[in-house]
Amino acid sequence: MIKERPFDEELKSLKEKLLEMAARAEEQIALSVRGLKDRDERLACQVLEREEAINILDVEVDEMAMRLLALRQPMATDLRFITSAMKIGSDLERIGDLAVNIAERTMDLLKHPQLKPLIDIPRMAELAQEMVRDALNAFINGDDKLAKDVCERDDRVDQLNEQVFRELLTFMMADATTIPRAVDLILVGRHLERIADHATNIGENVIYMVRGRTIKHHMEEGREAELKTCAEGK
Amino acid sequence: MIKERPFDEELKSLKEKLLEMAARAEEQIALSVRGLKDRDERLACQVLEREEAINILDVEVDEMAMRLLALRQPMATDLRFITSAMKIGSDLERIGDLAVNIAERTMDLLKHPQLKPLIDIPRMAELAQEMVRDALNAFINGDDKLAKDVCERDDRVDQLNEQVFRELLTFMMADATTIPRAVDLILVGRHLERIADHATNIGENVIYMVRGRTIKHHMEEGREAELKTCAEGK
Repeated sequence: MIKERPFDEELKSLKEKLLEMAARAEEQIALSVRGLKDRDERLACQVLEREEAINILDVEVDEMAMRLLALRQPMATDLRFITSAMKIGSDLERIGDLAVNIAERTMDLLKHPQLKPLIDIPRMAELAQEMVRDALNAFINGDDKLAKDVCERDDRVDQLNEQVFRELLTFMMADATTIPRAVDLILVGRHLERIADHATNIGENVIYMVRGRTIKHHMEEGREAELKTCAEGK
Repeated sequence: MIKERPFDEELKSLKEKLLEMAARAEEQIALSVRGLKDRDERLACQVLEREEAINILDVEVDEMAMRLLALRQPMATDLRFITSAMKIGSDLERIGDLAVNIAERTMDLLKHPQLKPLIDIPRMAELAQEMVRDALNAFINGDDKLAKDVCERDDRVDQLNEQVFRELLTFMMADATTIPRAVDLILVGRHLERIADHATNIGENVIYMVRGRTIKHHMEEGREAELKTCAEGK
């Protein structure tokens, strides 16, 4: 029979695996947007090549978590920690996918002259990276205050995305030849917005893990106004 | 002390909750796209109003699963079933969010005259609904063959989305006044594509649950060609 490692050690190595995943996911965001900003195809290629490592880590996190659940039958805090780890792994894996999507848009964009120097998109990427990093730190340290802070930063990324969208719409309206490139950049903006959403999911998960109750599914900004319009239209 | 229900009964009620979530998610896809196709704001409003019910079900699924893990300490098959249920709940909740995004685009589009009658988008919605329904049936019946079939249908939705995208690009290039509406419809196409991706995730999860090994993170169509281009460019 395989000798079992102490439970704490196994939890520690689960944490380390998630931290490695998060570091790689952050790096993928940075590489993909740097490749786009500096028009460097090699960076886009690196993003494609490095994707597999994150996918493998996700499978490993899942397997470790399942083994811990099966063999250790953990209670309360440890149980919440392990199930949170599985969910956070999925979020990080999707973040990796989204960075690949950005790299794909970049390879498309590099076939044509640059539409405009990019300012807001790299800013969005920085914010998203910080959110991922802080969400993971919040998870590791059980810091629900930091996790809440991460969730609150999501609005800033949404605003920047809205700004990027409007500016590109203006380009398209003024000159039809810019349309394919502008659409590509609009999609990059949305990929970054979704990356920030996944970081927010992680933050929400941490708050649930620490406080033992969910703050998920808070009403999104603007949703209340929409529902009011609906009610009035009846 | 609260009298405990038999384990099988609890698993059954977890299944029922997921089936209810899936039925609601399917309905949200149908309502949102019907609202768009028939230009009926009331349907878009209904989608917004019904979102909360799915979110509540997701929290309930998570809580049931956690309770089962904590109190029953299930092994092997049951353990995989319960952790799969948690992941499927997250996918269904995101599908609900995406239907809301479609309803929001619709409310935007209804402020302007119709750009074109919609054919491919309703077709995408039908396919996506079927994928969600079959993925859940595969889960309930432990049918990995059906689950694999669901995963394979994802390519068809991707193709339709590509088609929608290209057609709308043509509209925009020909007449700049169509741009804001065309962009809204491009986004609807992407939301539907992502709904199909979530159904595919569910299918992959079922295969993992049944076979005990993962088929996740298969190389996406076209990715291999991209990596080859990268290798040649060096």
